[in-house]
Amino acid sequence: MQEFDLAIRGGTVVTAADTMRAEIGIRDGRIVSVAERVGPAARSIDAGGLLVLPGGIDSHVHIAQASGPDVVMADDFASATRAAAAGGNTCVMPFALQPRGRSLREAVTAYRALAEGQCHVDVAIHMIVSDPNPAVLGQELPALVAEGYTSFKVFMTYDDLVLNDRQILDVFDLARRLGARAMVHAEGYDAIRYMTERLERAGTKAPYGHALSRPEVVEREAAHRAIAHAELVDLPIVIVHVSGREAMEQVAWARARGLKIHAETCPQYLTLTAEDLKGLGDDGMEGARYVCSPPPRDAESQAAIWRGIETGVFEVVSSDHCPFRYADAKGKRNPRAKESFRWIPNGIPGIETRLPILFSEGVSTGRISLNRFVALTATNHARLYGLYPRKGSIGPGFDADLTLWDPNRRETIRQERLHHGADYTPWEGFTVTGWPVMTILRGRVIAEEGRITGEPDWGRVIDRAVPGAGT
Amino acid sequence: MQEFDLAIRGGTVVTAADTMRAEIGIRDGRIVSVAERVGPAARSIDAGGLLVLPGGIDSHVHIAQASGPDVVMADDFASATRAAAAGGNTCVMPFALQPRGRSLREAVTAYRALAEGQCHVDVAIHMIVSDPNPAVLGQELPALVAEGYTSFKVFMTYDDLVLNDRQILDVFDLARRLGARAMVHAEGYDAIRYMTERLERAGTKAPYGHALSRPEVVEREAAHRAIAHAELVDLPIVIVHVSGREAMEQVAWARARGLKIHAETCPQYLTLTAEDLKGLGDDGMEGARYVCSPPPRDAESQAAIWRGIETGVFEVVSSDHCPFRYADAKGKRNPRAKESFRWIPNGIPGIETRLPILFSEGVSTGRISLNRFVALTATNHARLYGLYPRKGSIGPGFDADLTLWDPNRRETIRQERLHHGADYTPWEGFTVTGWPVMTILRGRVIAEEGRITGEPDWGRVIDRAVPGAGT
Amino acid sequence: MQEFDLAIRGGTVVTAADTMRAEIGIRDGRIVSVAERVGPAARSIDAGGLLVLPGGIDSHVHIAQASGPDVVMADDFASATRAAAAGGNTCVMPFALQPRGRSLREAVTAYRALAEGQCHVDVAIHMIVSDPNPAVLGQELPALVAEGYTSFKVFMTYDDLVLNDRQILDVFDLARRLGARAMVHAEGYDAIRYMTERLERAGTKAPYGHALSRPEVVEREAAHRAIAHAELVDLPIVIVHVSGREAMEQVAWARARGLKIHAETCPQYLTLTAEDLKGLGDDGMEGARYVCSPPPRDAESQAAIWRGIETGVFEVVSSDHCPFRYADAKGKRNPRAKESFRWIPNGIPGIETRLPILFSEGVSTGRISLNRFVALTATNHARLYGLYPRKGSIGPGFDADLTLWDPNRRETIRQERLHHGADYTPWEGFTVTGWPVMTILRGRVIAEEGRITGEPDWGRVIDRAVPGAGT
Amino acid sequence: MQEFDLAIRGGTVVTAADTMRAEIGIRDGRIVSVAERVGPAARSIDAGGLLVLPGGIDSHVHIAQASGPDVVMADDFASATRAAAAGGNTCVMPFALQPRGRSLREAVTAYRALAEGQCHVDVAIHMIVSDPNPAVLGQELPALVAEGYTSFKVFMTYDDLVLNDRQILDVFDLARRLGARAMVHAEGYDAIRYMTERLERAGTKAPYGHALSRPEVVEREAAHRAIAHAELVDLPIVIVHVSGREAMEQVAWARARGLKIHAETCPQYLTLTAEDLKGLGDDGMEGARYVCSPPPRDAESQAAIWRGIETGVFEVVSSDHCPFRYADAKGKRNPRAKESFRWIPNGIPGIETRLPILFSEGVSTGRISLNRFVALTATNHARLYGLYPRKGSIGPGFDADLTLWDPNRRETIRQERLHHGADYTPWEGFTVTGWPVMTILRGRVIAEEGRITGEPDWGRVIDRAVPGAGT
Repeated sequence: MQEFDLAIRGGTVVTAADTMRAEIGIRDGRIVSVAERVGPAARSIDAGGLLVLPGGIDSHVHIAQASGPDVVMADDFASATRAAAAGGNTCVMPFALQPRGRSLREAVTAYRALAEGQCHVDVAIHMIVSDPNPAVLGQELPALVAEGYTSFKVFMTYDDLVLNDRQILDVFDLARRLGARAMVHAEGYDAIRYMTERLERAGTKAPYGHALSRPEVVEREAAHRAIAHAELVDLPIVIVHVSGREAMEQVAWARARGLKIHAETCPQYLTLTAEDLKGLGDDGMEGARYVCSPPPRDAESQAAIWRGIETGVFEVVSSDHCPFRYADAKGKRNPRAKESFRWIPNGIPGIETRLPILFSEGVSTGRISLNRFVALTATNHARLYGLYPRKGSIGPGFDADLTLWDPNRRETIRQERLHHGADYTPWEGFTVTGWPVMTILRGRVIAEEGRITGEPDWGRVIDRAVPGAGT
Repeated sequence: MQEFDLAIRGGTVVTAADTMRAEIGIRDGRIVSVAERVGPAARSIDAGGLLVLPGGIDSHVHIAQASGPDVVMADDFASATRAAAAGGNTCVMPFALQPRGRSLREAVTAYRALAEGQCHVDVAIHMIVSDPNPAVLGQELPALVAEGYTSFKVFMTYDDLVLNDRQILDVFDLARRLGARAMVHAEGYDAIRYMTERLERAGTKAPYGHALSRPEVVEREAAHRAIAHAELVDLPIVIVHVSGREAMEQVAWARARGLKIHAETCPQYLTLTAEDLKGLGDDGMEGARYVCSPPPRDAESQAAIWRGIETGVFEVVSSDHCPFRYADAKGKRNPRAKESFRWIPNGIPGIETRLPILFSEGVSTGRISLNRFVALTATNHARLYGLYPRKGSIGPGFDADLTLWDPNRRETIRQERLHHGADYTPWEGFTVTGWPVMTILRGRVIAEEGRITGEPDWGRVIDRAVPGAGT
Repeated sequence: MQEFDLAIRGGTVVTAADTMRAEIGIRDGRIVSVAERVGPAARSIDAGGLLVLPGGIDSHVHIAQASGPDVVMADDFASATRAAAAGGNTCVMPFALQPRGRSLREAVTAYRALAEGQCHVDVAIHMIVSDPNPAVLGQELPALVAEGYTSFKVFMTYDDLVLNDRQILDVFDLARRLGARAMVHAEGYDAIRYMTERLERAGTKAPYGHALSRPEVVEREAAHRAIAHAELVDLPIVIVHVSGREAMEQVAWARARGLKIHAETCPQYLTLTAEDLKGLGDDGMEGARYVCSPPPRDAESQAAIWRGIETGVFEVVSSDHCPFRYADAKGKRNPRAKESFRWIPNGIPGIETRLPILFSEGVSTGRISLNRFVALTATNHARLYGLYPRKGSIGPGFDADLTLWDPNRRETIRQERLHHGADYTPWEGFTVTGWPVMTILRGRVIAEEGRITGEPDWGRVIDRAVPGAGT
Repeated sequence: MQEFDLAIRGGTVVTAADTMRAEIGIRDGRIVSVAERVGPAARSIDAGGLLVLPGGIDSHVHIAQASGPDVVMADDFASATRAAAAGGNTCVMPFALQPRGRSLREAVTAYRALAEGQCHVDVAIHMIVSDPNPAVLGQELPALVAEGYTSFKVFMTYDDLVLNDRQILDVFDLARRLGARAMVHAEGYDAIRYMTERLERAGTKAPYGHALSRPEVVEREAAHRAIAHAELVDLPIVIVHVSGREAMEQVAWARARGLKIHAETCPQYLTLTAEDLKGLGDDGMEGARYVCSPPPRDAESQAAIWRGIETGVFEVVSSDHCPFRYADAKGKRNPRAKESFRWIPNGIPGIETRLPILFSEGVSTGRISLNRFVALTATNHARLYGLYPRKGSIGPGFDADLTLWDPNRRETIRQERLHHGADYTPWEGFTVTGWPVMTILRGRVIAEEGRITGEPDWGRVIDRAVPGAGT
């Protein structure tokens, strides 16, 4: 009789703290042993020359999310989770969005139904609260948190999503009482509208106007405001997708004062700049491939964000995967996109490329250690959002979610090799060192060398505990 | 024939830069000569042993301002300007308040009518914009600025006055185009409401609740927000009545980055603390004597504000005179004041005590120089608000607005000696070193040793140029 | 046949990243398996209800170090390592001090000879370079680093040890070329002498004068200087025993700029203050029990240091164990101690109490996580000083250095229970929650419930690799 | 009979605080009246269209100073003060340098003898203390301060001048007791030597090596050290010639904490960069024209220094005039200059160009006000160094030291038009807007349109009071 269902042999195991030559024994989808040698197994995988990492957790993705009358998101759960698996991830966290004036409970129920049976990786669902009316604050949100939807995002911008400060204070207050995790999209609504109208009056239409309409000060102001309100309520929050030096300095300042402010950044803020939005080909619309919010900044901000990663200001790097088809964005489904940058859907795909880009630019260049890479891409996500200690590391008792990683493989990112529903990647032609060669979900191989080897019902929609203090 | 109408002889003349033994020759209400000796004059005043200062300018006072249905301000123009004159001031700047939904033009016209013929000192009128509708932004405000009402205040709190961020951006934008000076009351409306309701739910009723409902973070957040929006629009602004260390640090940070952010503080933030609001005598309402917004802070903030004065973060010290009768506030006219701190009128009197308190605590203690005192109390006010070079200093061409000051006189502040309409002073029993012994408005003695010697039509309502870059 | 020599069963294993229920299998002194269940073992220890931590590493202790003609250190290797073992430590790092004008090689050889065969825990030897002459820089230091003495400390104060800036630059430069780790005692020699003489002229003799002679600015200046010179040379350094807010802010500032500055603090800076030096009993000498350099500061600095621990400014907490007998210090062997604070030996004992104090004040109060405790007391020490991956964590391949910890045990620190050679503890009567119940060195139990169960030749003097980039 | 010896009519009088149309009446070399109209005068000068400024005070110049065996300074008192007068200055402050091992008293006496009868402008002598032995500290320095030499400079670098920290603490301590003003040249000696030797080993010889040998961190470290020691002693100090962003940030940080740290910068740090030292013409030595200490930095530092001027970090702008002949520097008298940058004399001429450059780049561009220009170039110098209220402003009682300035005149700086002893100017071809057209020293015209109209005995060597708290 075999002791294990699966053994990973010959690799170098990496956690957020340690790096060691070890074998991993897996039974019933969970890790039961980490040892110099583990006993006989039904299947053994040779990880010689490879790193064995906790499967990537991407705690900020948008899948099958309604985005307005004319705009269709390019990924459903099947395609998004195929891409996630191919990119070395074993868990993703998309958002169930409450349309304003509608029930949050119904939104969550309907969204979960879309996911069930369609997932190649595990899925844990955040909520987006767009209408914190008494029913939501009094009944729905407490009940949903109790059921395992223990995190939600609020927006400080977007017509259909923006909450005013009082609403944010009320949901922060409730989150504190529930122990739920609040995420904040920090850009100032009024400032963006003011800038957008000013730019439009001046005749600015092209995609680059998007970057001009949301300068760093707009993000910095909103970040300061969110931090101040979190301080008032005494709630730890996560400021998501911090893009620039100025907002980051607010986070660093708050943390130095002892406030529990968590921060996330994304590969786009490490590798792209606002200049990319200037792309003038394709009838002036090429820059639409890089339109996301906040927009990429400049080289100085990139350097600052790296410094924030190195010094611990950032605890998680997510993709903020938000895929649209460029063909639609530039006018096919969306003719108004040519009239003004404001009608270009905000968002870029990235679920499959997050890990290789961060590994290559971070680990291979020597900026961060292997262990910090694991913390930034898996462990800290699990800790921040209540998946820990089920997921996020390698050791007895954790789900057997693993990624076998070749640190020396050089690859070039190409849209034709990706699995997402978007029709382009912002990193077309970007060359990386380091690549996922196999992804294992609860002991089953779901992707190998870019091929999907699992089935859409292997992933589960999972509930979560309320998170603790954080990372 | 006399060369001068009036000569001031034997004193030490002080400007924002210099200190010198000199005589001053005055003709037709203006200074025409500053010299070792000036020629014969119709009247000569012996300033031996005294300082000759530019008359105090108090650029932030509230007079005869409607404050809600149950609340009557305790000063009309006659009483307020008598108090100003007795306290060493020759010019005050109150606010014409636009009620929401009403014409700004009408508010200004009506307010000016209240002042005309009733003023012992010169008066220059700011506006308060509470409803920046298209008529105000398109016609009224540009016309009023052109007529000499070149400054206005916006509020980030108070039910009847608060502007949202978009409105603030629009008025900032207009101010930039007009060259007008924008003043900002920086406290966050939503945060205050949230705290107030939380405190009320917890049973807090007494005046000290006022301080708890507006902690420093509330002022800091609003200050950051105002600074960010001023940066976006590229408008220099004045943040008025900065009360605490945290908001001050935002101003200092902004200035170090090269932003033109001006800041004002007040004697209450140098000498009072939130503890004063705890006064429990008089049926628990004694603390109502110290209720102002922002509230006084703690000793550490006082020290920080002094450091800000010493290092140039603050350019002006005003009184924010806002007088109510304590008898009314504690319940006579205003029974709800005992139900909750939120119904206590916000504001304390201070027009007559500003100069002695700042001189005593600043100059007599050695914290600031005589010249800095003049800058903080006269010159910088004139520069910030377009009164310069008509007012604010001593030299040929300036209005002969002078205060003769005894730097060694020790006095104790007593309500019975003051001229304002309030029935108390927060500084009852406060002892100072340094006292105004004579106030001269355009060459006429309007106050002497606490007696009013002028008439209520000696002061003028004056128009102003748009200010330049500031101090 | 047994699979393992020793198994630890039933406990909760903690690393710098993870916390998990797991058993540990040990063979030949090394961990070979971490698993839900490990197989049969010659001996099994029940860790039910206990935490299983990596053995404490104390990277800053002074043992059997010459300290001047009249001063004898109170611990030899036997007594110091007994105390270390009883306090939950499995490795300590003392210093081989080069007397000025003498060979560094000879100092190391002689010091190692003192240690061999006398150690209850493993010992890795740092060097102190007091005379970086050409022979030291050209031959001795490179050879000693190559042999495994890969770290050294330099002093910016003390008559017999102080290096001038040029000497520090030269040793930094060499350290960079060798990959060695440089530690810096940052207090300014000239400033201390100046203050000491000023105090003596003013008649200050008592121990509290020690604190007055080394105010925070003296440490801050030296920290800035060390950081600047490390920046110039491009060398990561460790600033040891950071005591106060001001020096810490320099470290935080440097790190935010991207410099690789590591920092250590000690329990004395978290729990004692300068007030303790005022102890007037015992003929005015009681305060001598708390004389260490830098001296403890005030409550505000304690709070700042805690914030630095929470936010990652500090990577290691060491004891700076430097034991003297109080009976000697206060005058028995050292009559000059009563003449001036400058003759009181600088240093306090702490090798046995470091872990309980940090656990109790850090983990039990909720300030830091269990994982951070492990990082601060073991893993980061190993990483900073080239002991990793041999020591510092729990996993296959690491030395089986373990501490079984009862997180709920309440104990009171008493000199009578300690094993060091000092005749007092600064924490007499200090009550803690959390206590080491068993210490295991390479698979052998060396201490249990305060009893020493190992032998003085169980510990080894170990060589080290050059460290990598750090933690 | 004429009331005045001289009247200046029709101009715009500018002080550090005010700007006004006024006439100035002068008698016996002093200003006696500032008025709309002054009475009859023996001579009247028409200042129509011109600004009437206080004569420039340059508180940091080197004249006829011994600079080593092979190096001769290019200006004696006659030539330097001719240049000063032509450049709009009425007072300069050079240094009497104490050679190490020699009497300070003798140095001052000999230096004063060089000046007497040779000066076109007034001269006030600072001291340089290079050897603070007991005789200097105990007798000479106290006596010299009492006689009116109330300021001195100390150096943190240069072989012949550097003081160690203890010496600096001792002279700071004495300065505090005497009320004398201490100036500090803040660059770290050991760091510069280390860098210089490293560069020489790497074969760097050319002038640009000078900039590489003194990077910003070297200045920042020394500035922090000087500030810390001033804080310890509680002495206000002046950090002279701050060149870069990093040192400036130390000053700004210190001031924000309430420390009295004064700072000076120079035109070279506003207009030149290290790139200028790369000049490769003239056999690779062209860059020697720009060798000064600290060296010019980069564009970012220039912007930072301007921000420091605008925000009040800097109180004085001096020339640090230190003239050498380029012909000598590049090898004629000094053949070693070609062997290494370290032998190029450190210093550039600038006494005649300081005011036009600062006016043009500061006032004409709108960066600073006219009043701030006056403060930076005259008033604050007088206040910092005990010349106030004799000099530094315009008003009754001040010396009639005036500069008539044409704010609109465009001129191009050319060596052929300058009066100094150097054979080049670093600003050859630099075009300015704003130019001094007449210089008046105590009521006598000493320069007009570039012509020297005074005599070398019109200037006086003047003694000074101990300065007060500063500006």
